[in-house]
Amino acid sequence: MKKIINQPENYVKEMLEGLYIAHPDLITYTGEDVHCLVSVNKKPGKVGIATGGGSGHLPLFLGYVGKGMLDGCSVGDVFQSPSAEQMLEVTKAIDSGAGVLYIYGNYNGDIFNFDMAAEMADFEENIRVESVVAGEDVASAGPSKEGEKNTRRGVAGIVFVYKCAGAAADKMMNLDEVKRVAEKAAANVRTMGVALTPCIVPRVGKPGFTIGEDEMEIGMGIHGETGIRRAKLEPADAIVDEMLEKVVADIPYVSGDEVAVLVNGLGATSLDEQYIVTRRIDTFLKEKGISVHRYYVGEYATSLEMAGFSISLLKLDDELKELLDAPAQTPFFVQL
Amino acid sequence: MKKIINQPENYVKEMLEGLYIAHPDLITYTGEDVHCLVSVNKKPGKVGIATGGGSGHLPLFLGYVGKGMLDGCSVGDVFQSPSAEQMLEVTKAIDSGAGVLYIYGNYNGDIFNFDMAAEMADFEENIRVESVVAGEDVASAGPSKEGEKNTRRGVAGIVFVYKCAGAAADKMMNLDEVKRVAEKAAANVRTMGVALTPCIVPRVGKPGFTIGEDEMEIGMGIHGETGIRRAKLEPADAIVDEMLEKVVADIPYVSGDEVAVLVNGLGATSLDEQYIVTRRIDTFLKEKGISVHRYYVGEYATSLEMAGFSISLLKLDDELKELLDAPAQTPFFVQL
Repeated sequence: MKKIINQPENYVKEMLEGLYIAHPDLITYTGEDVHCLVSVNKKPGKVGIATGGGSGHLPLFLGYVGKGMLDGCSVGDVFQSPSAEQMLEVTKAIDSGAGVLYIYGNYNGDIFNFDMAAEMADFEENIRVESVVAGEDVASAGPSKEGEKNTRRGVAGIVFVYKCAGAAADKMMNLDEVKRVAEKAAANVRTMGVALTPCIVPRVGKPGFTIGEDEMEIGMGIHGETGIRRAKLEPADAIVDEMLEKVVADIPYVSGDEVAVLVNGLGATSLDEQYIVTRRIDTFLKEKGISVHRYYVGEYATSLEMAGFSISLLKLDDELKELLDAPAQTPFFVQL
Repeated sequence: MKKIINQPENYVKEMLEGLYIAHPDLITYTGEDVHCLVSVNKKPGKVGIATGGGSGHLPLFLGYVGKGMLDGCSVGDVFQSPSAEQMLEVTKAIDSGAGVLYIYGNYNGDIFNFDMAAEMADFEENIRVESVVAGEDVASAGPSKEGEKNTRRGVAGIVFVYKCAGAAADKMMNLDEVKRVAEKAAANVRTMGVALTPCIVPRVGKPGFTIGEDEMEIGMGIHGETGIRRAKLEPADAIVDEMLEKVVADIPYVSGDEVAVLVNGLGATSLDEQYIVTRRIDTFLKEKGISVHRYYVGEYATSLEMAGFSISLLKLDDELKELLDAPAQTPFFVQL
C-alpha cells in the first residue's frame, strides 16, 4: 500500500487535523470531536445545511462547508457513515432557529443515521429538520417503476445540489423553499463515471477488487461498486460518447436544454485528461443541441487514489442558474 | 499506458482546447496557435507577466493566467519548452507599453528560448523585457560557491513568485519594481519533493524509470530527475521531517520567521494524504519557532499522474505578505 500516511487507524483524524490547520478562516469543529465540522461564519436566522458521509472522497463532503454552501458536515471513517450522534452535534451547532436541511447521498448507512439524527433533533432539541437524499448515478438506476425506491447512488452531482441549496439559504429563503430548491437540483442532475484502477482503504491495506492493466469499468461507483460494463480501455472520445449517451437519455436532456457540466477526477487522473474529456463533452452536447452555461473541471468527489472520472449534467432553469452562479467560499469551492 | 486520451500526438492540443472551452471568461489564445495562451482581461498600462514551459504540469504553468497573476503563457509539448516564436507571440499580445516580465523555471531549454524571445521582442518589436529565472529546489542546489550558476530546478514554489509579482503588476508598479518583487519572492522560496511512482509521457507510452513497490525517492524532480535518496517508504511524519530539515537549513528559515506554505500534490496523491502532511508540517514549524501566515494545499504543479508531493516555504516580509494576500482569479487560483 503506497500511501503517505502514518498509522492507518489515525488516517481520518490526522487528515481532519490538517484540514483545520489549513483553513482556520473557514472551518472548525464543534465540541471535542474533529469529525463534526462546522463553518466559522454562522449567519443569524439562516437555514442551516448539513451533509455527511464517509471519508476518502475529498473534497466531498467536508470541503464544501463555508460561505454560500454548507454550514456543517459530519464524517465517518473511510467509506463509513458518521454516527447519528455526530450528525446531531453538527445539527445543534448550525441551527439558528430557522431549521436545518440535510443533503446527503443515497447510501443505506447514511440514510439510517441521518433519519435517526433528524428524529433526535426534533424530539430532544426541538430543531426542525428536513432531508433531501441525492441519488443521481445513471449506472445504478435499476428498473424504473413508478413509486419504486430510488436505487441510484449519490456521487459527484451532489455538489450541484449543495451549491444551489446553499445559495438559496444564503438568500435567506425559508426551510421549505431551500428544500424545494435542493429537490429540484437533485431531480435535474445525472452522473456517470468510469474507473481505471481500484483504490485502497488504508485500514484494509490492499485493493478491494482488481481491474486489468488494459481494462476500464464504465459505471463503477465511488466505493468500487460494480458498474455496467467491464471492457478494454478505449480512446477518450469513445468513452465520453458512451457515458453521455446514457446520461442524456436518462432524464432526458434534450435539444434546447441548458446545462452546467461537472467533469470530476476520481483521484489519480490528471487534469490534462480531464480537459481532453471536457473538449469531447462540448462537441457531443453541441451536436445534441444542448448548450452549456458553465463548466467545472477538477477533483470534486474522489475515491482515494482511484484513476477515472465522472461527468455530471445539471439541467438549468432561471432559478437554478442564478443560484449556481451566486458567490461561494469554502476550502474547495471559491466562486466570485 | 492507462490514460484517458486519444492519439498521443494530439494530447496537448486537445487538453488546451478543453481548457479554453472550460474557462472562456478568463483565457484565450493569441493568433492561431493554441499553445500561446493569454488573459482575456488586459489591463491598460500594466506591466505584462509571461511564463512558459512544458505541458504535463497542470495547473502549472497556464492555469495561473488571469486577473492578479499572469497575463500570458506559452506551452510546449509534454515536458518540452515552447519555442521562442511562441513566447514572442505571447509577449506582443500582453504588452501594454509598460514592458513585459518573464518568470520561468530554471531549465536549459526554457532559458535558451526565453532569452531569444526577449532579444526578438527588444529588436523587432521595441518591447522592453526583463527576466526572472526561478530555481528553488533544495535537492538540486549543487555545491554553493559564490558566483556560481544556480543549478536549482524551478518547481512548485514558482507559484509564490507568480502570485507576488502578479499582485505587484496589478498594483501598477513599473517593470523594475515588479522584477524586484519577483526576485525577492524567488530568493525567499525553497521547495523539496518526494516521488512514489513514475509518470508516463503520452508519446513515449511507458515510464522513464521505475520505483520499487515499497520505495520512494526524496528530492526527485518533476520530470523524474534523480533525487538525493532512494529508500523504503516511511511514515508520513518521518518523510515530512526529513524534507523540512533540509528546507529550513537552506536559506535558512529561522525562529521568528513568518512563512507561507504550499503543500503540492504531484498528481496521483490524494488530498487526504496532503492534509496528513500539512498536519506534520505545522507541528514541525511550530517546534522551530517559525510561524505560518497561510497554507495552500492541493495540486499546484504536477508531473502527469506521478504519486508524491512537495513542500514549499516562502519567507515573508510585510511587502510579500500584502502581495500574497491580494485577490486573484485564474482558472486554478481564486483568492478573495
